[in-house]
Amino acid sequence: MDFSFSPRVADWRGRISEFVAATVIPREQVAFAHGVDDELRRDLQAAAKLAGIFAPQASAELGGGGFTLVESAVLLEVAGYSLLGPLALGCHAPDEGNIHMLDVIATPAQRERYLRPLATGEVRSCFAMTEPAPGAGSDPAALRTAARQVDGGWVISGEKHLITGADGAAFAVVMAAGGGGSDGTSGATMFLVDADNPGWELKEHARTIDTTMPGGHCRILLNDVFVPDAAVLGEPGRGFAYAQVRLAPARLTHCMRWMGAAQRAHDIALDRAIGREVFGRALAEQGMAQAMIADNEIDLTAARVMLWHCCWEQEVGTPGTEASSRTKVFVSEAVNRVVDRAVQLTGGMGTTEELVIGRIFADIRAFRIYDGASEVHRMSIARHAVKRARSRQDG
Amino acid sequence: MDFSFSPRVADWRGRISEFVAATVIPREQVAFAHGVDDELRRDLQAAAKLAGIFAPQASAELGGGGFTLVESAVLLEVAGYSLLGPLALGCHAPDEGNIHMLDVIATPAQRERYLRPLATGEVRSCFAMTEPAPGAGSDPAALRTAARQVDGGWVISGEKHLITGADGAAFAVVMAAGGGGSDGTSGATMFLVDADNPGWELKEHARTIDTTMPGGHCRILLNDVFVPDAAVLGEPGRGFAYAQVRLAPARLTHCMRWMGAAQRAHDIALDRAIGREVFGRALAEQGMAQAMIADNEIDLTAARVMLWHCCWEQEVGTPGTEASSRTKVFVSEAVNRVVDRAVQLTGGMGTTEELVIGRIFADIRAFRIYDGASEVHRMSIARHAVKRARSRQDG
Amino acid sequence: MDFSFSPRVADWRGRISEFVAATVIPREQVAFAHGVDDELRRDLQAAAKLAGIFAPQASAELGGGGFTLVESAVLLEVAGYSLLGPLALGCHAPDEGNIHMLDVIATPAQRERYLRPLATGEVRSCFAMTEPAPGAGSDPAALRTAARQVDGGWVISGEKHLITGADGAAFAVVMAAGGGGSDGTSGATMFLVDADNPGWELKEHARTIDTTMPGGHCRILLNDVFVPDAAVLGEPGRGFAYAQVRLAPARLTHCMRWMGAAQRAHDIALDRAIGREVFGRALAEQGMAQAMIADNEIDLTAARVMLWHCCWEQEVGTPGTEASSRTKVFVSEAVNRVVDRAVQLTGGMGTTEELVIGRIFADIRAFRIYDGASEVHRMSIARHAVKRARSRQDG
Amino acid sequence: MDFSFSPRVADWRGRISEFVAATVIPREQVAFAHGVDDELRRDLQAAAKLAGIFAPQASAELGGGGFTLVESAVLLEVAGYSLLGPLALGCHAPDEGNIHMLDVIATPAQRERYLRPLATGEVRSCFAMTEPAPGAGSDPAALRTAARQVDGGWVISGEKHLITGADGAAFAVVMAAGGGGSDGTSGATMFLVDADNPGWELKEHARTIDTTMPGGHCRILLNDVFVPDAAVLGEPGRGFAYAQVRLAPARLTHCMRWMGAAQRAHDIALDRAIGREVFGRALAEQGMAQAMIADNEIDLTAARVMLWHCCWEQEVGTPGTEASSRTKVFVSEAVNRVVDRAVQLTGGMGTTEELVIGRIFADIRAFRIYDGASEVHRMSIARHAVKRARSRQDG
Repeated sequence: MDFSFSPRVADWRGRISEFVAATVIPREQVAFAHGVDDELRRDLQAAAKLAGIFAPQASAELGGGGFTLVESAVLLEVAGYSLLGPLALGCHAPDEGNIHMLDVIATPAQRERYLRPLATGEVRSCFAMTEPAPGAGSDPAALRTAARQVDGGWVISGEKHLITGADGAAFAVVMAAGGGGSDGTSGATMFLVDADNPGWELKEHARTIDTTMPGGHCRILLNDVFVPDAAVLGEPGRGFAYAQVRLAPARLTHCMRWMGAAQRAHDIALDRAIGREVFGRALAEQGMAQAMIADNEIDLTAARVMLWHCCWEQEVGTPGTEASSRTKVFVSEAVNRVVDRAVQLTGGMGTTEELVIGRIFADIRAFRIYDGASEVHRMSIARHAVKRARSRQDG
Repeated sequence: MDFSFSPRVADWRGRISEFVAATVIPREQVAFAHGVDDELRRDLQAAAKLAGIFAPQASAELGGGGFTLVESAVLLEVAGYSLLGPLALGCHAPDEGNIHMLDVIATPAQRERYLRPLATGEVRSCFAMTEPAPGAGSDPAALRTAARQVDGGWVISGEKHLITGADGAAFAVVMAAGGGGSDGTSGATMFLVDADNPGWELKEHARTIDTTMPGGHCRILLNDVFVPDAAVLGEPGRGFAYAQVRLAPARLTHCMRWMGAAQRAHDIALDRAIGREVFGRALAEQGMAQAMIADNEIDLTAARVMLWHCCWEQEVGTPGTEASSRTKVFVSEAVNRVVDRAVQLTGGMGTTEELVIGRIFADIRAFRIYDGASEVHRMSIARHAVKRARSRQDG
Repeated sequence: MDFSFSPRVADWRGRISEFVAATVIPREQVAFAHGVDDELRRDLQAAAKLAGIFAPQASAELGGGGFTLVESAVLLEVAGYSLLGPLALGCHAPDEGNIHMLDVIATPAQRERYLRPLATGEVRSCFAMTEPAPGAGSDPAALRTAARQVDGGWVISGEKHLITGADGAAFAVVMAAGGGGSDGTSGATMFLVDADNPGWELKEHARTIDTTMPGGHCRILLNDVFVPDAAVLGEPGRGFAYAQVRLAPARLTHCMRWMGAAQRAHDIALDRAIGREVFGRALAEQGMAQAMIADNEIDLTAARVMLWHCCWEQEVGTPGTEASSRTKVFVSEAVNRVVDRAVQLTGGMGTTEELVIGRIFADIRAFRIYDGASEVHRMSIARHAVKRARSRQDG
Repeated sequence: MDFSFSPRVADWRGRISEFVAATVIPREQVAFAHGVDDELRRDLQAAAKLAGIFAPQASAELGGGGFTLVESAVLLEVAGYSLLGPLALGCHAPDEGNIHMLDVIATPAQRERYLRPLATGEVRSCFAMTEPAPGAGSDPAALRTAARQVDGGWVISGEKHLITGADGAAFAVVMAAGGGGSDGTSGATMFLVDADNPGWELKEHARTIDTTMPGGHCRILLNDVFVPDAAVLGEPGRGFAYAQVRLAPARLTHCMRWMGAAQRAHDIALDRAIGREVFGRALAEQGMAQAMIADNEIDLTAARVMLWHCCWEQEVGTPGTEASSRTKVFVSEAVNRVVDRAVQLTGGMGTTEELVIGRIFADIRAFRIYDGASEVHRMSIARHAVKRARSRQDG
């Protein structure tokens, strides 16, 4: 076993870290107070390109760093040290997941039209899967948005909600029931839908606890959206399989970014606890504060190493959802604990976004829900464990 | 032992509950989206007065219900079922705590000028104690704002921050070092300062995780604020003792209100879990959801009964900070757990303020910090326990 | 609301406390090292009778204190301060539960033959319900032991395990399938079986984590046990209903006794933490120790008050399993946390039974399992909550 | 990064696993019921030598496998799958730690006389550091046992307690104050003391929660124990430094072994949950059971990977106590959680040593205390974090 980084990873890591400190963090407070818009995104992305650190996880062919998944874990954590860092580096959700999926599935024409401008940050995108109850949420099989084949294309109808980044996105990857393929899969299909499609109707933003995502979390009506056959992503009827292509790595890149945010909250809290004298001693030297500091150190280390190991497993040939489910549950809950402790350590100021921790606290909560709620992953992990135990018993 | 309510409590409880459902909850979404202002407050308070349920905890002489502390626990919980309920009923922080303190300490003239308009909802107030580091936070002894005696009064100078409700308050109770009394107490003094005092300078609102408090959490400069002797609340030099008069019951009324908010979040989550089918069964019938539902029921019951018991103890003659510290820690952590589980149970929608839970989640976090952070109370509880054990060992 | 004790409760409480300190605790170490036998039990019970504190919870007609359930909560906690205390006072499991059940159900003849000698401590008993998989465990409906009616009585066949107190018991209350009554209940019947019945075969003791129960946890074979009709307890076919008569209060008396044990562990740990200097300061003054001390104080208070409230509810007319389920889960988990912290606070010595804490730790674990595992109660609590929510929605 | 095993590790892993299943596990129940003695140890060790898997972690020169620390993590976990496995393979505490320390420090003569027979399993040893209060416990500096230099040697006097394995040990490594070296270190010295030294007096075994350690946890009197100069281990006065040589890797090998025990408890519980039908469905398919199964899978994975990473760090040049403290806290708490859940999953049977889980539960508790209580490590971790933060602030 060997846990060391390559020199190229170490080099990027250092440069991303400097960039975040020098260029991204100074932009935070204004962005927090007035909103994260595309102008800010373009500014930051231009700077990241100049610094030669844009899109570490994207393939070289797309202008990215071409790093492996486990290497990206190191780099995206450092990018995530600012809530704006992933956006600056073009490795933010949901675009990063869409880039990955399109890179695997898109046709050459789709690559040119959708993937390339997305990977370079020219445009933003969204991923339209979740629906209001009783539609697709934790249980994707409940999909209500439906596509039916018509002359020369498809017509999609339905309602989506909590679609992250929809406002301002140039296009959406839309998941719809229908198109059941000859391979007997469940029959969902993915479509590329332009935001200026007349049937694509952007409704209100949800007022969520988190507030940093450019483009918000929007409700969308799909009013008989017509798309040509060329808008089908991959093969009709294989939508659920493609969703897995997107979701398993996407939940790991979420982990990477949130590791950075949690580390940031911890560092700020630690600095404050060192400088703050309470009851005659530095807060950082008092037992209950020490316990919180230590638990943060432990959680961050455990989460980081578990994430690295999982990424490595995905690469060397034991991919699959079991390890990524375990990792997603542990990391999402660990980073929430870390940030909650950081709030507690800093007291009243820890609840403010002026000290950044308050903003991270609000933004990170939903990570225990999206890309698979903890409970859904636990159910899945248990089923895998039972299956393995049964094999063991039989063999 | 007898845990039953009197008929009068039961009557108010029923009427408050109806009022909150019929009159307060319908105003929530607009208030959440556009802010909680004094116009809304006056509307709601007028309605509550008409309904004969205004100010249950205030003394009858002030126009309130005159209920005991343990009775108020029952009633303020029901008021807290909406985040706007306590405001509507005139039992909201920080005014409710100021009303209580003034009722105990104020001179007849102060009663007329400050207490009566506050108790009737004519004006709002704030309590100006906390300061930016290295001033008074968890450790009140670090007080930096200072008052010095001058001809005919006092001059107060300093900086306060996170002063809840300051924007729009008619007056503030200001805690300042100085005035050390002959009784040898530590020498802080409380002052009543009008908001139109030329030295009282309202600065920016902090951008905090919670957003429902009318008047925000503000920074205040006290620029050589001159007040006459008549503005001293109680005796000079006894500020810390008076702060205890305010803080011990205030932390219990906080518990009461937040109990209601947590119950609300739980009820919403439960309703959703009943109506939501996932993986072929109602969510509320699935094991991990059942565990969250049950844990909420357990936490709510334990917290409620512990709170009642503590209120009763305060009344029958074992007052003191030990029981209220224990209760504040348990209740504040229990309600945070309850609301966190409610978010998790409702998934993506649970993170929105449209479903109310998201708003409660954001608002309730700071309660583990204000009125004594959990760690400070734990330190205090342990010291009391050690002291009792030493007596036991000696006796 | 009124949480005060009557003078008679206060009097017994004081005398039990003295008795436990002066008479019971001095016998602990020998009993721990060499086993808790009936000779020790008789000695201690004789002393308790002399002290006028025997069987506080039993009815006066049976020679007990005749205290109500909520009063018993106060007294049995104090008895439980020593692991041998309940045995000394004749309020130990499983006899105390059997006494209660027989007092409610037994015929006059059964009262004389079984209940009276049991209540006075002349004999011990056991309750034979649980069975090895796939029989009755968490799910009583899986009952495999069966009774069939024959001329002049019944023949019972089956296997029971983990039957507490079986070795040395004079008789058992045996739960068996069969006897389905005209009331349509599920058809289990309870029988009183003498230990010298030729078909009653006592097998090995399980080697369990806990070791203090007189009579151990035994496996039993019921080899065509013949009993006359007079051995039926209550009516045939109503066994499950009678089990509830036993289980709901029995789980509360378990809570009472374990509260005392947890308080004892906490007190010992606190005394040690006060006397122990580590890194230059008393352990009890160090932050992480303070956190454990405070959490113990909080858990003990919350558990105690919740227990009292639940006992009161059982008495005033809202009996039922929902409140006792909530209370059992909370108290059993709280006392386990308390004892675990006591071990941690005392370090190496905390793992020994010389310091008593180690013994309590080992004995208390199973309480999260017996009389309803936490998970079974949580399922039940959630179902009750769902049912209430549905009524609310409908009404 | 590369997390794969070498073929030689995989080979040993497979063979150890088979050996534990075929040879060690069948001996467990008799050993649990009647005690783990040296006859059993010799039998099992002879078998392990025959199987070519003895002492994986010991150097080849001593007849061991010569595996690195991270490789040993893989192998000792598999050995730990039975509580008797490490004993069988000669990698059990406290001997394994003594072997490591002697291998680093002992003189050639000491190697022949003490190390070689210890490494080959000819004899057992103990490590005599901890003392009754107010002596050396969590705070080693409180050492009371003292050594004074006399003609031709040293005389050691004092009292030790909870000395694991003392009964039956051929010799002890004794830590005593005195011998302050010219290097200014704190002046403790380690001595090799034969058990037949007339001053070495073995007193009673403590009655601890755990019961599997051969030789128990004993109290020892050192009655003016005379040892020659050749009995000094390393240099006089450097005892605390040598203790670190022992403790840092020893706490990691403890982690390795307990990982195996926790995995065993989990596997047994999982098998039972699969086979057990409750309320009409396999327990393993019910939500709350799934949550426990999943949490065990997550904890085991996180703990294992964190342990591997820490071992690798120790080897490649970032040794030190910070990483091993973090790892020890996380692993010791994680394995305790896992075993506790395994008990809960299996219900009544989970509390028995017949099902093994009950025994593991009792044995594993103390691991959160020995080799540094969690609180002591947390204090240390926080201090390291503060130190690094200060460097960051300065640099």
